Amino acid sequence: MIKKIKKINASILIIGNEILSGRTQDKNISFLAKWLNSKCGISVKEVRIVPDEEQIIINNILTLSKKFNYVFTTGGIGPTHDDITAKSISKAFKLKYEFHNEAYRILEKYYGKKNFNDGRKKMAKMPRGAKLIYNPSSAAPGFITKNVLSLPGVPSILNSMIENCKKHLVKGLKVHSRTLNLFTVESNISKQLSITQKKYKKNVDIGSYPFFRLGKIGVSLVSRSNSKIMLNKIENELKTMAKKKKIKILKI
Amino acid sequence: MIKKIKKINASILIIGNEILSGRTQDKNISFLAKWLNSKCGISVKEVRIVPDEEQIIINNILTLSKKFNYVFTTGGIGPTHDDITAKSISKAFKLKYEFHNEAYRILEKYYGKKNFNDGRKKMAKMPRGAKLIYNPSSAAPGFITKNVLSLPGVPSILNSMIENCKKHLVKGLKVHSRTLNLFTVESNISKQLSITQKKYKKNVDIGSYPFFRLGKIGVSLVSRSNSKIMLNKIENELKTMAKKKKIKILKI
Repeated sequence: MIKKIKKINASILIIGNEILSGRTQDKNISFLAKWLNSKCGISVKEVRIVPDEEQIIINNILTLSKKFNYVFTTGGIGPTHDDITAKSISKAFKLKYEFHNEAYRILEKYYGKKNFNDGRKKMAKMPRGAKLIYNPSSAAPGFITKNVLSLPGVPSILNSMIENCKKHLVKGLKVHSRTLNLFTVESNISKQLSITQKKYKKNVDIGSYPFFRLGKIGVSLVSRSNSKIMLNKIENELKTMAKKKKIKILKI
Repeated sequence: MIKKIKKINASILIIGNEILSGRTQDKNISFLAKWLNSKCGISVKEVRIVPDEEQIIINNILTLSKKFNYVFTTGGIGPTHDDITAKSISKAFKLKYEFHNEAYRILEKYYGKKNFNDGRKKMAKMPRGAKLIYNPSSAAPGFITKNVLSLPGVPSILNSMIENCKKHLVKGLKVHSRTLNLFTVESNISKQLSITQKKYKKNVDIGSYPFFRLGKIGVSLVSRSNSKIMLNKIENELKTMAKKKKIKILKI
């Protein structure tokens, strides 16, 4: 178990050829990252997208589970031949890949004994000792192996299961963010921004992102910090800069 | 230089805190993956998303540039303090980080001598010996360092530059795909699918993806191969399976 520490991080491992080929636009990264930060105070520090290939999944599970407090996998837990997440995680941690009794019962009840075929049974096979993440929308549960939480790839199903992850996670300190939208270009404010960032680099991260809105170009300045007091300070400083440079602020 | 080989692969390194925090939904992975495959016959085999931190970018550039024929980076080449891609790549390859003469001239002409401030000048700093990727929409060029192609993070600008990458890439064999949409559930066809995949595993990858359309659930079977003849074979086999199981095919 992870001790109660202030900064808790996670990585996301997206498993699926359909994302790598560009056929499917991933929607899980943004959802998971926002949910983890706002609900659990956990920051996502790295994402990897890899194909449905056993050895590649094994290597990435081992690397990421050592590097981060948690790893969230998405995809590869369905009934078909290309769903190899559970088997690969079992191999990675040298755990037996076997039927999980409770998962078996849940799925058998959901499909009915007569229709509980091999493909459906496969969804009850997990690494030995896995804990279940219940699935209110389509029965097949996700599972937790050591610090790895495995969720499905279909966004609507993943979203329906996410609250069931909460009790298994140690919470960290929430990162707050503050956005200031300026009608200017990045290169007009980069010098001042750099000075402000250096001054507060211990406590605040300032990001600068161009936008196009209302037919005009602008820059969103996003400050992120554990401290709301620091964010107020930064906001005032950036507003003063905008005033000095006669830059309009977009109010939303 | 990479020799003319049949299978050419690439990885994508997305650099940016805004993607990791979930604030921004990435659009470049899907665009790049599709473009690379359809226009250049290059398959994306791994994607990583990392924060704007120098040492992390350096480590990932070194790992990915060894592992894959090409690495595409997106993000971190603008004028602000959090744009550190060029500097990090210079350090990774132990190359001097300096003004690129042509990039300097392009940017000076675009902004005008009077307005060519330090932030704007920064966009002309690159690893020594970098080749430019011209930018028709906002002047600031991307650049190529060894087998690493660096592009901006703003999707509309990246899209406008992509054709200028083409001449720098060795082309591979295109992967064709064929999709069959069936009104069934995965677990109903997983056994037959597994048999078909095993039979053709040398030449074809079959992926299975649930969908929700016209108020019904279904499964898209996507076969991918270098050979159109093989794809025809697979398609016939899967259609026969559907017929036997009395599964309706969705015609689009």
